[in-house]
Amino acid sequence: MEQSQNMKDLAFARTKTTFSITDMTNYLYGGSSNVEQRRYVIDLIAREPIFNKSDWPWLNHTEAVKRGVAMSVRLAEIKMEHELNDLDFSTMIEAIDDPLPILLHNGAFIQVINSQGTEEQIDFWIPKAEQYQIIGCYAQTELGHGSNLSSLETTATFVKETDQWEIHSTTFTAAKWWIGGLGVASTHAIVQAKLIIDGKDYGAHVFIVPIRSLEDHKPFPGIQVGDIGPKAYGGFAKMDNGFARFNKYRIPRENMLMRFSKVSKDGVYTKPPHAKLSYGSMVLLRSVMIRQMATYLSRATTIATRYLTVRRQFNNPTQRNDADLNPGLETQVINYPMVQNRLFPMIAQSYALFVAGSEMMGKYISLMTGMSSGNIDALAEVHAISSALKSYCTTIAAAGAEECRKLMGGHGYSYFTGLSHLFAMIVPSNTYEGDNYVLTQQMARYLLKEIKTARATPDKVTPFSRYLLLGLSRDQFSRAFCKVSQDSDWLIPEVQLAAFEHRCARLAFELNDAIEAGEGCDNWSDYNIECCRVSHAHAQYVMALWFTESVQEAQDPEADEDRRVQLASISALKKLLNLHALSIMLTNLADFCEDGYFSPAQCQSLRRQVKVLVASLADDVVGLVDAFDHPDFLLDSALGANDGDAYKRLWDKAQSEPLNRKDVCDGYKEYIRPLLKKHGDIKL
Amino acid sequence: MEQSQNMKDLAFARTKTTFSITDMTNYLYGGSSNVEQRRYVIDLIAREPIFNKSDWPWLNHTEAVKRGVAMSVRLAEIKMEHELNDLDFSTMIEAIDDPLPILLHNGAFIQVINSQGTEEQIDFWIPKAEQYQIIGCYAQTELGHGSNLSSLETTATFVKETDQWEIHSTTFTAAKWWIGGLGVASTHAIVQAKLIIDGKDYGAHVFIVPIRSLEDHKPFPGIQVGDIGPKAYGGFAKMDNGFARFNKYRIPRENMLMRFSKVSKDGVYTKPPHAKLSYGSMVLLRSVMIRQMATYLSRATTIATRYLTVRRQFNNPTQRNDADLNPGLETQVINYPMVQNRLFPMIAQSYALFVAGSEMMGKYISLMTGMSSGNIDALAEVHAISSALKSYCTTIAAAGAEECRKLMGGHGYSYFTGLSHLFAMIVPSNTYEGDNYVLTQQMARYLLKEIKTARATPDKVTPFSRYLLLGLSRDQFSRAFCKVSQDSDWLIPEVQLAAFEHRCARLAFELNDAIEAGEGCDNWSDYNIECCRVSHAHAQYVMALWFTESVQEAQDPEADEDRRVQLASISALKKLLNLHALSIMLTNLADFCEDGYFSPAQCQSLRRQVKVLVASLADDVVGLVDAFDHPDFLLDSALGANDGDAYKRLWDKAQSEPLNRKDVCDGYKEYIRPLLKKHGDIKL
Repeated sequence: MEQSQNMKDLAFARTKTTFSITDMTNYLYGGSSNVEQRRYVIDLIAREPIFNKSDWPWLNHTEAVKRGVAMSVRLAEIKMEHELNDLDFSTMIEAIDDPLPILLHNGAFIQVINSQGTEEQIDFWIPKAEQYQIIGCYAQTELGHGSNLSSLETTATFVKETDQWEIHSTTFTAAKWWIGGLGVASTHAIVQAKLIIDGKDYGAHVFIVPIRSLEDHKPFPGIQVGDIGPKAYGGFAKMDNGFARFNKYRIPRENMLMRFSKVSKDGVYTKPPHAKLSYGSMVLLRSVMIRQMATYLSRATTIATRYLTVRRQFNNPTQRNDADLNPGLETQVINYPMVQNRLFPMIAQSYALFVAGSEMMGKYISLMTGMSSGNIDALAEVHAISSALKSYCTTIAAAGAEECRKLMGGHGYSYFTGLSHLFAMIVPSNTYEGDNYVLTQQMARYLLKEIKTARATPDKVTPFSRYLLLGLSRDQFSRAFCKVSQDSDWLIPEVQLAAFEHRCARLAFELNDAIEAGEGCDNWSDYNIECCRVSHAHAQYVMALWFTESVQEAQDPEADEDRRVQLASISALKKLLNLHALSIMLTNLADFCEDGYFSPAQCQSLRRQVKVLVASLADDVVGLVDAFDHPDFLLDSALGANDGDAYKRLWDKAQSEPLNRKDVCDGYKEYIRPLLKKHGDIKL
Repeated sequence: MEQSQNMKDLAFARTKTTFSITDMTNYLYGGSSNVEQRRYVIDLIAREPIFNKSDWPWLNHTEAVKRGVAMSVRLAEIKMEHELNDLDFSTMIEAIDDPLPILLHNGAFIQVINSQGTEEQIDFWIPKAEQYQIIGCYAQTELGHGSNLSSLETTATFVKETDQWEIHSTTFTAAKWWIGGLGVASTHAIVQAKLIIDGKDYGAHVFIVPIRSLEDHKPFPGIQVGDIGPKAYGGFAKMDNGFARFNKYRIPRENMLMRFSKVSKDGVYTKPPHAKLSYGSMVLLRSVMIRQMATYLSRATTIATRYLTVRRQFNNPTQRNDADLNPGLETQVINYPMVQNRLFPMIAQSYALFVAGSEMMGKYISLMTGMSSGNIDALAEVHAISSALKSYCTTIAAAGAEECRKLMGGHGYSYFTGLSHLFAMIVPSNTYEGDNYVLTQQMARYLLKEIKTARATPDKVTPFSRYLLLGLSRDQFSRAFCKVSQDSDWLIPEVQLAAFEHRCARLAFELNDAIEAGEGCDNWSDYNIECCRVSHAHAQYVMALWFTESVQEAQDPEADEDRRVQLASISALKKLLNLHALSIMLTNLADFCEDGYFSPAQCQSLRRQVKVLVASLADDVVGLVDAFDHPDFLLDSALGANDGDAYKRLWDKAQSEPLNRKDVCDGYKEYIRPLLKKHGDIKL
């Protein structure tokens, strides 16, 4: 078949890649075996007709949820048919690319029973759940309460006479809300409710509550349950986020998960051993989210990079790296500096997110290993960092997806870019699992504690907050300045990290001083803005640090093969980590220059260096996004497909529009014709 | 009926308003008569069942377009039934709140014929169009070309023998694309095509092309026409954005609009008198868009402000302005400083947008008056400002709507906030009518010209670029610094405007110097980043200036009554204009401090002053958004309704979800049951 100009353009751009894409993909996914396994699992999904995405834009919410149910069931079957571990399962979910009613069955229902159930409860429930003889969800959030769990209004009152719990929605706002899988699919829910015995409130505990009959799937009497309706931007269309109100609904005492707290037949409550173990699962969830954001933003930049490489607009003869192609052609949009300076830093961010995702996961695993042997030293720091990164990474991923869409100009507003679906799927991550602004307080609190530690016992300061020691001698610190004297100095890792550390330390001490000055008469929340600034600053520092370390590691001949990459890849990676670090400085420039740490001349120099860096990546960006290894099935984008045939694919997609099956539209006879004929027939 | 706590909270918050809401509404809309007329027109729409919005979220694209057709026809009838001027018509469109297939019939088809048709053509086409005996659209953009009009590929070749034009899509990418109204509704299109006579290309001209038969609405042979499919985020769902390919399609010579260029029967082409008149319509369109952005962002802030006033989370006893209410209640989310500092600046922006909208419209009208008497002096400046403002205002409106949605936390992800529909409707404005980044070059080009003027003939510099005179003595300029010595100094208008002017002048001269240093060997697009910075800086300056002047005017006893407002309102307005100006400085702080114009101490002082300003608005924000006067029908938001009954409305909306009509979902028998029973029946 004859190649379109679009296809030629993308193919030609690929020839300019200066490094091995295989090599780079292995770096991103931690080795070829992981890459192979990911491809295998994605293909498992892609082969199944039920996971075909082509008619998604035409489904209304009812049709979409029915599809979601069908997809859920097939996903469950595949999981049982194949020996797939958790990573494979999350890869399947990545490939399916739309949250399904069954997601929380594995993601929460089974996990919570395993972590908070007794041996007997695990033996009783887990096999049934693993075999999908029951379908579960996790019901925590209520209409009136999300962030503030301690104020949940659902109650579970012990009824000694019948040895039961009476689950009750005490108020209208106690209705469970947003519960994924509850709307139509689940037979059971784990319900968070205040445990009450003899009028005494023991706080929130978890109970397994049957919702629908295993015989006919009808909701049980005493439960009002349903779907909460469509979500913003058409997101989570196939997910049956649901509500439930309980009216003095009875369940057996044994349905309370009793690994930690217990209630005996005669209503005696036993307190849990004070356990911070729940923090572990939060850290895990956030680590997974960071990895998700890496795949999301990398998908967005893949689509934008490919389309902007084949889109041509205006002819700027001096602005082309394809001079050997037909000179009559217009300039590829990706060659415009404005476009490059918006897009390329997001490609660098995507790489930084991949690194952060695996680093965070590593931190989680070593934390768990430590905790299993009773060592919780790292808990506070790891939890704080996971909070800061969850907040920062989900924020830039959502903003980045929309920025990529805008970069695509007019055609970017078509559903067929694949980006609007992606954005709709990302944005809730900014407000769930801890609102991104509320979360930043965790990091700030931690740093304030560390400042006290730094003053009392400097050697006890944990690794990522060592920079606080800089601020101990305040006057010396306030005279500190950036060592850059020529543009190329910006590329020195120590210069970059020093700048991030100075900024973090300054913001942390300013917050600390302000609070000390307030002498406790202000409210903590008066400082939320400062908390947010310092938390994001710390997240950016950690990401820059990890990226730098990971590239150093990658060139270490001693390093294990999976992590080692060729020199050509190293030089591309160095450009990326430099661009990542320096473009953060540019977008947050005031944080670096308002106290004089960067001089006016250095600010100008930084701008020049970023422009140079960006330009230096021009020949490699197509290869860099190819290295993300996202197949067309996953991208589901007419404009970002691997073959670059953007216009043809956009055209074909339009032809598949159901409206185009008729040559005269619905509503012509009822509406249009009467209007046209209102003032009589005319001939033209 | 008993008031819910939500309702009590909003009602109580209203009692704290310090100014007259009526007064403020009159200020925003330029007088009570405008306010009354707007209410009357919105009510005209709200009364009609066909414009009811309650089932919108359940419609798929085909159903939505059919609805759009029905709404279009009713809109056309109302327009004919009532004596409504253009402003009223745009108010109707605002009230309908979703672009309709018929929109471009009035918005472009009729306008273009009136401006580019001959008297005969106007007499022939306009009455038919006014009576909707034909339905028209405007076909300019093609699959392969948007921004670069000069490269459109559709041709209109003169066929002398038959005295016809042959309209032809020379290539695949020549297909017209994105054309609103073309997908299913239009009978005619104004087509932009390259005029060709005897093989000579005379460039793009406009032709009236019949698309569908007036008898049966079937497309004519030689035209392949259809709908391009769904848009991002479910936006423009009722609009039939369409495509068309022409295959040597013949139309009469008379169908070329010949007011300016003419082609005679024997194929003689007459050049148009060089006319910049087309600029006028661009300025108009952009002025209208700025006014639209004011209503859009004000709707978003209305919804967020009301919901966050009734949403309570956590109990911070010291953080309440409702102490006289039940102290047992949790804190209203809007009382948290972080929330206030994110939300209140957007309320201030909304006010600034209202002012900018009417100022820009005023500039357009006086420009037209001037031009009609041959005076085009103001054209260049007004066109540049309209470009800069369109780019800046549509950018902040889109970002603001999404930020408001995120402010609403978990429930913000529900479609029923009304914000996702709003965002989806706003975002294309960032890329159509001139991509927001490309547009900024207009402003930059203009300022570079003005710098030459400033050097040659300083007195000839136009009003809004007077600040360039500051930069003429560069060393003096580089030693300039901000005069603030105490926090309250930030409230001095001269201090604010001086800072904006210094920033604009610096950026403009830096751009100018860089280009002069490049001595033309660089490409203009190498400076697009700098163009964008200076253009946004100028837009922000102009908006701050206009807001300041408008408030001064409002307190002038001489001012005409429509514009005059009470002192209480003035003090609220002053807080808003200060917050608008100072929060811009904060979000762009590096532009002000990197050259030392703001000292480190002043940066800290600015942060303090903004926090104080924000806090000072806490009692007034509900009143300030009420003053936008957006009825519930327009907001279409469960969480932002006027009565504040957020939870109840969200609940009721969920109950209306079609999925909830069945107690067992579609797909249970085919999918869920077989899965549950796969490993045999279990009893629980």
